[in-house]
Amino acid sequence: MTTVTVLGLGPMGHALAAAFAAADHPTTVWNRTPGKENGLAVTTAPTAAEAIAASPLVVVCVRDYTAARSVLDTDALTGRTLVNLTGGSPRQALTMADWAAGHGIDYLDGVIMATTGAIGGPDASFFYSGPADVYRKHRDTLTALGENMQHVGDDPGRAAAFDASLQDMLWTSMSGVIHMLALAKAENIDATDIATHAKALLGFFPDMIDLLADQVSTDRYPGDYGTLASTAATMDHILDTVRARDLDNGVLTAARAHVQRAIDTGHGSDGFGRLATL
Amino acid sequence: MTTVTVLGLGPMGHALAAAFAAADHPTTVWNRTPGKENGLAVTTAPTAAEAIAASPLVVVCVRDYTAARSVLDTDALTGRTLVNLTGGSPRQALTMADWAAGHGIDYLDGVIMATTGAIGGPDASFFYSGPADVYRKHRDTLTALGENMQHVGDDPGRAAAFDASLQDMLWTSMSGVIHMLALAKAENIDATDIATHAKALLGFFPDMIDLLADQVSTDRYPGDYGTLASTAATMDHILDTVRARDLDNGVLTAARAHVQRAIDTGHGSDGFGRLATL
Repeated sequence: MTTVTVLGLGPMGHALAAAFAAADHPTTVWNRTPGKENGLAVTTAPTAAEAIAASPLVVVCVRDYTAARSVLDTDALTGRTLVNLTGGSPRQALTMADWAAGHGIDYLDGVIMATTGAIGGPDASFFYSGPADVYRKHRDTLTALGENMQHVGDDPGRAAAFDASLQDMLWTSMSGVIHMLALAKAENIDATDIATHAKALLGFFPDMIDLLADQVSTDRYPGDYGTLASTAATMDHILDTVRARDLDNGVLTAARAHVQRAIDTGHGSDGFGRLATL
Repeated sequence: MTTVTVLGLGPMGHALAAAFAAADHPTTVWNRTPGKENGLAVTTAPTAAEAIAASPLVVVCVRDYTAARSVLDTDALTGRTLVNLTGGSPRQALTMADWAAGHGIDYLDGVIMATTGAIGGPDASFFYSGPADVYRKHRDTLTALGENMQHVGDDPGRAAAFDASLQDMLWTSMSGVIHMLALAKAENIDATDIATHAKALLGFFPDMIDLLADQVSTDRYPGDYGTLASTAATMDHILDTVRARDLDNGVLTAARAHVQRAIDTGHGSDGFGRLATL
């Protein structure tokens, strides 16, 4: 068992500390505001530096990279491994990795694809990037957070790039789901009823994702499964209906404008994948 | 077997006529531009009126409602049933239903949730709205197009309302998928690789849809599974990454603005479902 330190006990940091402790790793925690360690079988350090000094492996999960830097004691971290599970951009990860390298700190940048309740279980996914040997050294300990983990590259920004791409799809899709529910409500369609049909429609998403991924990876955008011109017509029907109900239409209008740009540049008979190039 | 007429032989109309003929319904077709009936075991009528006169059940599937009205011969249709599978809005469906009622035409408004290749098979879904007795009368014949069909209400606009709601989710989500692929490409992540992770992420969508549907149907928006304030922070990370790569950010920026409106009106600690009310 490896001694581990967790800095930050927000809901996610709390779940991470709980998972390490549950896997019998002696765990030391610190949080800027004290008293957040309730229910955790951990040691609480009075300062971040003392928490860091307690373990060779230090996990930080706070609000953002600025907050992370403010709690990371450079002297205490030297010679240890820092795993940053704070959400950020690839650029922020690269900056943090440079800082770590400059202070003799081994650095992994990680992202969590899970809700707090899923940490430690099979539904939690983790991406890590940074030096492969550092990942290998701590992999077994990190599996306490969830066995579904992957090292996506030595480039420290790569985990954040995977994260941003997937979150992009996730939150745009969630915008679509909530707008569907708003429109259905305006049309007096029961939320549970439309949800049932929406879940059935999800059955087509894997093939749709594969089709679009194939178009992007081959840089060929055939319109066999529907052209951007027909997409524009469909979006106009949706927008007509949305506007008739005076609902917010910002997301749909932006999506429609993107399609129009493709049409205006001569790609109206191409498939939807063409939008990835514009 | 019932005699059926199909007006419009675009890719979808062609697939509909093929499905009726494959189910041994004697099928008459007409298209504004001749010569589109290739490969179909059907009778071609020289005019729309003659095609309509050949069958008690007339299916129209053309570009839009304006095109539909222009091919529908009022005198020929009187006393017959018109099933309109042309894409449109609930308002357009209601207008068409009024017109049909004024001319003694039984009217069903239908929507197709399928690609042309799926017509006649288990992956094609159909919603119909309009008088239940008219639906019951023609249900068996219409199953030739796909057995997965549902009468969603007597209100003729209801099928189009279901359609608009589901298409709203579908196309917004597709915008998210293509933007994910564009961002991944900019970050040198292989399309096939990110697609694999995206498909895994889909596994969470049914629960997410149920959660949001529950929030909307109960009009309660607890932030237990994430607040709009945390969504805003996540979207800002994504937008930072997108802007660093000079990618189009219209859809994400609109989604982010919607979240900001919720925060600005005091709903930052609510769940994502709150957006359905703003």
